[in-house]
Amino acid sequence: MMENVRIVLVNTSHPGNIGSSARAMKTMGLKNLYLVAPKLFPHDKATEMASGATDVLEQARVVETLAEAIADCHLVFGTSSRSRAISWPVISPRECATKIKEQAQKTNIAIVFGREQTGLTNEELHQCQYHIQIPADSIYCSLNLASAVQVLAYELRVIHESAPVPVLKDCDYASSEELEGFYEHLERVMIQIEFLNPKAPKQLMARLRRLFYRAELDKREVNILRGILGAIEKSCSSR
Amino acid sequence: MMENVRIVLVNTSHPGNIGSSARAMKTMGLKNLYLVAPKLFPHDKATEMASGATDVLEQARVVETLAEAIADCHLVFGTSSRSRAISWPVISPRECATKIKEQAQKTNIAIVFGREQTGLTNEELHQCQYHIQIPADSIYCSLNLASAVQVLAYELRVIHESAPVPVLKDCDYASSEELEGFYEHLERVMIQIEFLNPKAPKQLMARLRRLFYRAELDKREVNILRGILGAIEKSCSSR
Repeated sequence: MMENVRIVLVNTSHPGNIGSSARAMKTMGLKNLYLVAPKLFPHDKATEMASGATDVLEQARVVETLAEAIADCHLVFGTSSRSRAISWPVISPRECATKIKEQAQKTNIAIVFGREQTGLTNEELHQCQYHIQIPADSIYCSLNLASAVQVLAYELRVIHESAPVPVLKDCDYASSEELEGFYEHLERVMIQIEFLNPKAPKQLMARLRRLFYRAELDKREVNILRGILGAIEKSCSSR
Repeated sequence: MMENVRIVLVNTSHPGNIGSSARAMKTMGLKNLYLVAPKLFPHDKATEMASGATDVLEQARVVETLAEAIADCHLVFGTSSRSRAISWPVISPRECATKIKEQAQKTNIAIVFGREQTGLTNEELHQCQYHIQIPADSIYCSLNLASAVQVLAYELRVIHESAPVPVLKDCDYASSEELEGFYEHLERVMIQIEFLNPKAPKQLMARLRRLFYRAELDKREVNILRGILGAIEKSCSSR
């Protein structure tokens, strides 16, 4: 289970936080670290804070965009402390761990953490099926990045050490890359048919994403939907 | 509940860890920090790492010994990653949170964290009723101090936000100070009656402590036991 889970840190400012996060991961048995455009990495401060977890840092994958980091993942969780304009399925760290335990044997899973000051952007959050909110004090809820990683990794560890969950169904989920391809296609078609005004898009695409995330699309369904989109495009352009 | 819980850090080496621990506490709604003989405090690094939790640092109580920090507590939990020569009741962070929820309305409670490198000494651990082991990887289990504080504080937060636990019984528990007075008295008497050889004490006092901790003594019972010890002393010296 733990091998299929990756921690993704987006645009981290302080290299010390990358090192502390690596240590938090390793203590709980997690090893896959993805860094999306870190400000400073590699860095002495990261190595120092990693303590005995420098191997996690050495094996970390550095990529340019969140999309690259999660391309081959089916389940993507994003951490968020703020409530958003459009409400998304929000779960607790414990619920997240339960979902991961159910799915981790058959797919890659990512837990995404945002910038120290500003978290994840709305656009990034819309690439995640679920938003995780860590329970916190109502007035001061600003967890340190590595502390947030520690809480999630800890919940995974606890559930990992508990009794196994039976695999409920065996299906071939669509990857994040396949889903993104579908959403782009969908957006093009929405514009083409003038349902979506690119100058005033409102929350349309976000609402559609949320809907399809809930459906947990498999590969075949994505092919079917794209087939439909292709048919719409063809039909409209030939008019 | 949260107001009656204190976090006790023993002999912390790095002031940054004190600051990070204060932040971890405040994000979860904990405010009472006790520092037992910190190496460097106050310190700029502590303030920096505390971020928005400098008020927790400013209100922290600095004391010389663990006994002072826990004197008015009934329930004392010590964190430990090593197994010990004499086995103690070991519980998980979640079990600890459950116990605290049951008791926190009627007594003060301490969670004690040891030194960064070496943890708590056996003597310090024997001042705790329960030892908490945080689930961790079997090979690399060395959590950063603030991460360990975060995990415990998080479990408290989760249970704090859940439904209230009914108070099972209303009794007047003995304080840690009263218990320590009893144990000292007990040890003197054990030596006096030559059941305990001070040059080869083995684990006798630890075993006795463990036994009485399990009994969860109230004030009246401690008075009775000390009455018995007094009677033994008097009886032996008059022979």
